Amino acid sequence: MARVNDNYLKLQKSYLFTEIAGRVKTFQAQNPTARIIRLGIGDVTQPLPPAAIKALHEAVDEMARVESFKGYGPEPGYEFLTELIAQKDYGARGVRIASDEIFVSDGAKSDTANIQEIFAPDSIVALTDPVYPVYVDSNVMAGRSGDPDADGRYKGFVYLPCTAANNFQPALPDRPVDLIYLCYPNNPTGAVMTREALKRWVDYARSQRAVLLYDAAYEAYIREPGIPRSIFEIDGAREVAIEFKSFSKTAGFTGTRCAFTVVPKELLARSAAGDPVSLNGLWLRRQSTKFNGAPYIVQKAAAAVYSEAGQREVRGLIDFYLENARIIREGLEAAGLTVYGGQHAPYIWVKTPPGLGSWEFFDKLLNEVHVVGTPGSGFGPSGEGYFRLTAFGQRSEAQEAVERIKTRLEF
Amino acid sequence: MARVNDNYLKLQKSYLFTEIAGRVKTFQAQNPTARIIRLGIGDVTQPLPPAAIKALHEAVDEMARVESFKGYGPEPGYEFLTELIAQKDYGARGVRIASDEIFVSDGAKSDTANIQEIFAPDSIVALTDPVYPVYVDSNVMAGRSGDPDADGRYKGFVYLPCTAANNFQPALPDRPVDLIYLCYPNNPTGAVMTREALKRWVDYARSQRAVLLYDAAYEAYIREPGIPRSIFEIDGAREVAIEFKSFSKTAGFTGTRCAFTVVPKELLARSAAGDPVSLNGLWLRRQSTKFNGAPYIVQKAAAAVYSEAGQREVRGLIDFYLENARIIREGLEAAGLTVYGGQHAPYIWVKTPPGLGSWEFFDKLLNEVHVVGTPGSGFGPSGEGYFRLTAFGQRSEAQEAVERIKTRLEF
Repeated sequence: MARVNDNYLKLQKSYLFTEIAGRVKTFQAQNPTARIIRLGIGDVTQPLPPAAIKALHEAVDEMARVESFKGYGPEPGYEFLTELIAQKDYGARGVRIASDEIFVSDGAKSDTANIQEIFAPDSIVALTDPVYPVYVDSNVMAGRSGDPDADGRYKGFVYLPCTAANNFQPALPDRPVDLIYLCYPNNPTGAVMTREALKRWVDYARSQRAVLLYDAAYEAYIREPGIPRSIFEIDGAREVAIEFKSFSKTAGFTGTRCAFTVVPKELLARSAAGDPVSLNGLWLRRQSTKFNGAPYIVQKAAAAVYSEAGQREVRGLIDFYLENARIIREGLEAAGLTVYGGQHAPYIWVKTPPGLGSWEFFDKLLNEVHVVGTPGSGFGPSGEGYFRLTAFGQRSEAQEAVERIKTRLEF
Repeated sequence: MARVNDNYLKLQKSYLFTEIAGRVKTFQAQNPTARIIRLGIGDVTQPLPPAAIKALHEAVDEMARVESFKGYGPEPGYEFLTELIAQKDYGARGVRIASDEIFVSDGAKSDTANIQEIFAPDSIVALTDPVYPVYVDSNVMAGRSGDPDADGRYKGFVYLPCTAANNFQPALPDRPVDLIYLCYPNNPTGAVMTREALKRWVDYARSQRAVLLYDAAYEAYIREPGIPRSIFEIDGAREVAIEFKSFSKTAGFTGTRCAFTVVPKELLARSAAGDPVSLNGLWLRRQSTKFNGAPYIVQKAAAAVYSEAGQREVRGLIDFYLENARIIREGLEAAGLTVYGGQHAPYIWVKTPPGLGSWEFFDKLLNEVHVVGTPGSGFGPSGEGYFRLTAFGQRSEAQEAVERIKTRLEF
């Protein structure tokens, strides 16, 4: 009989969002008139920017005519897009990234999940805790995890706790690692990393010859010039880092699907024989074999995001979500809660009141003020005692949620 | 230093299309006035059907309004699409497939490359020869291949030659295998498999408890009622087969990206501990973790393909390409060449004239009549002595290519 990849059987069931949905459903059934406000899921709610809509309509019309129809495109993306990215996201900020170091894809989720495929199966993986579950699960599937312990920590991974005690800044690993996942601005904690802190990681990776897998999906939410928006702003990062970026949380592409990954040509890893191998070349081969490019019409929409109108509109979207974040953050502080994040990130990371665990606070918020968030423990053991709210809802929802918490939540 | 996945280093360089491009470029430079006709690449040329264009415009407008905007969709696809597929592609033909056995994706290339991830790393893989290179390369990357021999055959794979000698019908494997890739109508040979032949494979897989990975991307080109368009038309296939289908070669989605994979709930494989495991569940977990759904607007376009207008338009597109195939096939036969395929497939598989290898025939066609095709040897060792032409070009190109071959090619 054919046999399965047994590593899949080590995955912990993804109870988080189904458990949330179940509790919300039960509550709503018992309280049919309650108006529930959902601030739990990290999905945008504002429409695509007009520049992207216009580009989509024009590209669709191109697909309707034989002389402008587009079939297969280049797997790593059309040059009209990769050149814009190289120039506007990097060159304009003084960072040198070539067009052929950029790989356009259908999403940062796919890219951050797939990137581990080009590395040795027995690579040692370091992960922050709490963390975006895709980094964990993709490495479990690939056989790098070993079994989980009672807390859900896999024995084969090196966890880097991020809590209020260390200001949500992970310590350097205490043993050798090969791959290090970092995400700043962070999902779920909303923390950012200063230039000095990021430089410390780049220097560490260079000294250990480890590779940093840097998820910058939320970089557009950084509004302080001193905080790096790309790891490639740090000297030496081209030799140790891969960066992931996305149009999802900037231009609202969560349902339209476009992202990109930057793999510099200086970045090498070694073969079993000890020879240096270009990771740019391996990723190109991976993407050319297991992917066939993002849709032409979607790449045209992504390109339109870099137009003057597109940049202005995206800035407006991010301003909108950051204002939601401010309302939630300041409102919760005024209510007496301790709150992190939400300044350079769309995530607000709330310390649960004394004596309440993540799930207890979830139930309390749902029952007392009809607001849904995400228990921090769902992002890893060090998330216990925290709670995530997102700024991606409507303005009126953010305002009303805060008002309810301020006036009706007792703790 | 971080280490690479050494299996990538066993991949044979994908010289085929770069070598073709290089030879064409050199020829064109030396013969600047020659009008080259390209019948080499399997990419469509006709615009998207009007029903899909209309649906795209409407869906783009939905993305422009807050009340109809769509963010993240369900990873396995929207039900409005999976239910249409279940009903129109299967139910209407008497085949029972449930909506939650269908997984919508960004392409059959991705799906046929990714599917091996849910199987044991030491699974024994059987492949027809010649074959679509993605099946080979994705399994090389996963470490199932061993090293290649001088002919380019990997020692770990079981090759099933398909040549004129066996009427392009592979023999059953002569040793135990776990996974068997089949593609009918076949790329590159254009061969189809009768109901009896396909039943033999299903029965074999059931007796061996192997899994059939059945690529039906070209099923819409079948115009003879007796030839199965889905492996699930065969009794017992639900226990042994996964089927891949695509909108690329039907509705012209090669640059728009939408496909789907069917994994029946009866399909099981065993864990190392010997327990049966649902492959439907594993694929759902794989897709939910490493993929985030096809774009909403693209899924709406795919759904429109099932409307009355869409079905009529797609039929027209396929009629168009099949007429090209007929022109090429009959023209080459009239020119004295031996030709296979091209009746229920967009591919014409030409026997090279005596004494000419695949690449020699390539050069001869290019030099003497300025027509570009694909050397059969590029699809595997058993493709040597054959040559692939595709029917996806413009009508005038098919006609002129045939005219040139008939009147000017000497062999």
